[in-house]
Amino acid sequence: MRVLIVNCTLKPSPEKSNTEALADVVADALRGEGVEVASVRAVDHSIPPGVESEMGEGDEWPGIRAQILDSQILVFATPTWLGRPSSIAQRVLERMDAMLSETDDEGRPVAYNRVAGVVVTGNEDGAHHVISEVSGALADIGFTVPGQAWTYWNRGPGPGDSYLESEEGREWSHSTGKAAAANLLAVARALERMPIPAPPSE
Amino acid sequence: MRVLIVNCTLKPSPEKSNTEALADVVADALRGEGVEVASVRAVDHSIPPGVESEMGEGDEWPGIRAQILDSQILVFATPTWLGRPSSIAQRVLERMDAMLSETDDEGRPVAYNRVAGVVVTGNEDGAHHVISEVSGALADIGFTVPGQAWTYWNRGPGPGDSYLESEEGREWSHSTGKAAAANLLAVARALERMPIPAPPSE
Amino acid sequence: MRVLIVNCTLKPSPEKSNTEALADVVADALRGEGVEVASVRAVDHSIPPGVESEMGEGDEWPGIRAQILDSQILVFATPTWLGRPSSIAQRVLERMDAMLSETDDEGRPVAYNRVAGVVVTGNEDGAHHVISEVSGALADIGFTVPGQAWTYWNRGPGPGDSYLESEEGREWSHSTGKAAAANLLAVARALERMPIPAPPSE
Amino acid sequence: MRVLIVNCTLKPSPEKSNTEALADVVADALRGEGVEVASVRAVDHSIPPGVESEMGEGDEWPGIRAQILDSQILVFATPTWLGRPSSIAQRVLERMDAMLSETDDEGRPVAYNRVAGVVVTGNEDGAHHVISEVSGALADIGFTVPGQAWTYWNRGPGPGDSYLESEEGREWSHSTGKAAAANLLAVARALERMPIPAPPSE
Repeated sequence: MRVLIVNCTLKPSPEKSNTEALADVVADALRGEGVEVASVRAVDHSIPPGVESEMGEGDEWPGIRAQILDSQILVFATPTWLGRPSSIAQRVLERMDAMLSETDDEGRPVAYNRVAGVVVTGNEDGAHHVISEVSGALADIGFTVPGQAWTYWNRGPGPGDSYLESEEGREWSHSTGKAAAANLLAVARALERMPIPAPPSE
Repeated sequence: MRVLIVNCTLKPSPEKSNTEALADVVADALRGEGVEVASVRAVDHSIPPGVESEMGEGDEWPGIRAQILDSQILVFATPTWLGRPSSIAQRVLERMDAMLSETDDEGRPVAYNRVAGVVVTGNEDGAHHVISEVSGALADIGFTVPGQAWTYWNRGPGPGDSYLESEEGREWSHSTGKAAAANLLAVARALERMPIPAPPSE
Repeated sequence: MRVLIVNCTLKPSPEKSNTEALADVVADALRGEGVEVASVRAVDHSIPPGVESEMGEGDEWPGIRAQILDSQILVFATPTWLGRPSSIAQRVLERMDAMLSETDDEGRPVAYNRVAGVVVTGNEDGAHHVISEVSGALADIGFTVPGQAWTYWNRGPGPGDSYLESEEGREWSHSTGKAAAANLLAVARALERMPIPAPPSE
Repeated sequence: MRVLIVNCTLKPSPEKSNTEALADVVADALRGEGVEVASVRAVDHSIPPGVESEMGEGDEWPGIRAQILDSQILVFATPTWLGRPSSIAQRVLERMDAMLSETDDEGRPVAYNRVAGVVVTGNEDGAHHVISEVSGALADIGFTVPGQAWTYWNRGPGPGDSYLESEEGREWSHSTGKAAAANLLAVARALERMPIPAPPSE
């Protein structure tokens, strides 16, 4: 059982990422269950725009794609900008769009029997919408979204502190993140034991 | 294994519901697998506004709520109005909001280990958004949303025919609906065998 | 110049409405400019589901519709439930859907040259999405949405106090509400002086 | 009176852009009214991620930003990917986020008294949501969104042709685009004559 965290912050390393910090709570909870967790900060890689799995020379998406398909659990972490998922998050989803027509040996879309959760931070209101947008896109692609498999932090109303700048509300965000980790793991294990079969042929 | 279809059309019986007609494709596929399928047209019942499981005399929500909790699979069917889920759909979700704080004998939110899918019709563009809105809300409440557990029909651009008025595009909507049925059933069975445990206590 | 506030709280009168309380800040600012402000709490009226301007006996929508069309400024106020506009808000929008095909003497959709703003409260994250959903629907119908013509209050992360239960963050919500009032009034006056003409005929 | 079309296709020049082709209908209608129209294909420029107006060496955003502020009408054109605005569209919005705190000589946010419309294409359902997302973000920044100032093309259900691959439905998309052009121009002219004043000071 492997987990990949894809962090869609706009900030290249080594800048501090609020989103990474909150995603780490979920990662730690998963590691505590003996699961292997890797992570990638998408903005550190060259990911050209497009909806194909390979977009030519210099494209670093194929390596990230391989990590996603090598994992049973995807934790999709993104900041909130203008109330919506980051441009990096949408870029990652667009490249994952190609998975819609890629199938495994049994004819199943490659995302089947993988589960996905969402972690969102922001300096203002918007997290629930971001969670719906991201998990809606991932379910379209074929990921299963377990109940309550997300957490977020922001503090309204209006623009304000980022996650790392405030101690307020962390307890809720962390306990919600730990529940998300448990739910992701439980559903991933259930699908490992009893996988979704190939779609019915007409 | 039981399925409940909640049809959130605006039209009271016996008016023909496009949404019901498309939901029937999913229902038939599930029945074909030997699963028991019931359905309810929410607008035929008195469901007062509110976010409690019981809102007083004349409230017919408790009966629908009991049917939801008596089923392992929820198929949430709604038309698209102004690009969004119907007011009846939002009413049903609001009443389900109470499930957030209702737990089973093991301390799990009552929606845990249930799966949900979405069926959408419309006379114009909007289905993917409606699917994200509804499945986002249901995942918040605790339902697990299997990958590709939805179907829809509309025919753009601009306002046009409803599902029952056109033969176009039905093949895609029906085969997508059958795949949705299969995916709902597979994940429901996996969670029946290996259920999500109670959330970690702090 | 007249303003109508449509409050889409789920709570019938005389229950206290958080949404009304915040909408009153916008109303007071408009009254301070000498503008006449009326308001209606939609849930106090019988508004059957449908997408026609008249849905038969007992339908109280026609009176609200007349008030909307008697005003140049619409302030659409709604709570946030499950991260989305209330079922009452969607009901009002559905009934307004009929305005898409209703035109004035010059062939313009009846909503043209009217402006709309949004007020949102909630006990959790979701306001920006609710504002986009409501103002998107109103712009579809033909209302002009001035820049920064909204305000909201909620306090995350996670569920918490409602607007009337907390003093926190009010200053921002109120000053944003006063700016919304000013922007609504400015654009309404500009359109009164130089109205949008009828759509080009083909 | 100047118009800028920002095309947020994922395809670099000289690839054919469906979005550009539909945006040209709006552009032509505006030119027919004697208005100057320029356009930029954002993906052809280096626009690093971030939320500042200048992000350092090689950043080509400042030139696009200058063109936006040199125009009274912004036509924001984007394809639909996974039911949502493109990553390029979100990138542009993120860079525009800085405009929230940039003011003119009279203390008004720089986007005030500018109007914005949206053009959307796609090979599947999603346009209304994309329109709401983009116009919601632009209204947050301060743009005024005239009623019915958008058009779109897609043809459901399910994935299918792109705009340039089909003749179906074009008449509706084009006449809706011409109406959008007229509405954008009318509101821009009204705001030119009677501009929104600076926000009230506390």
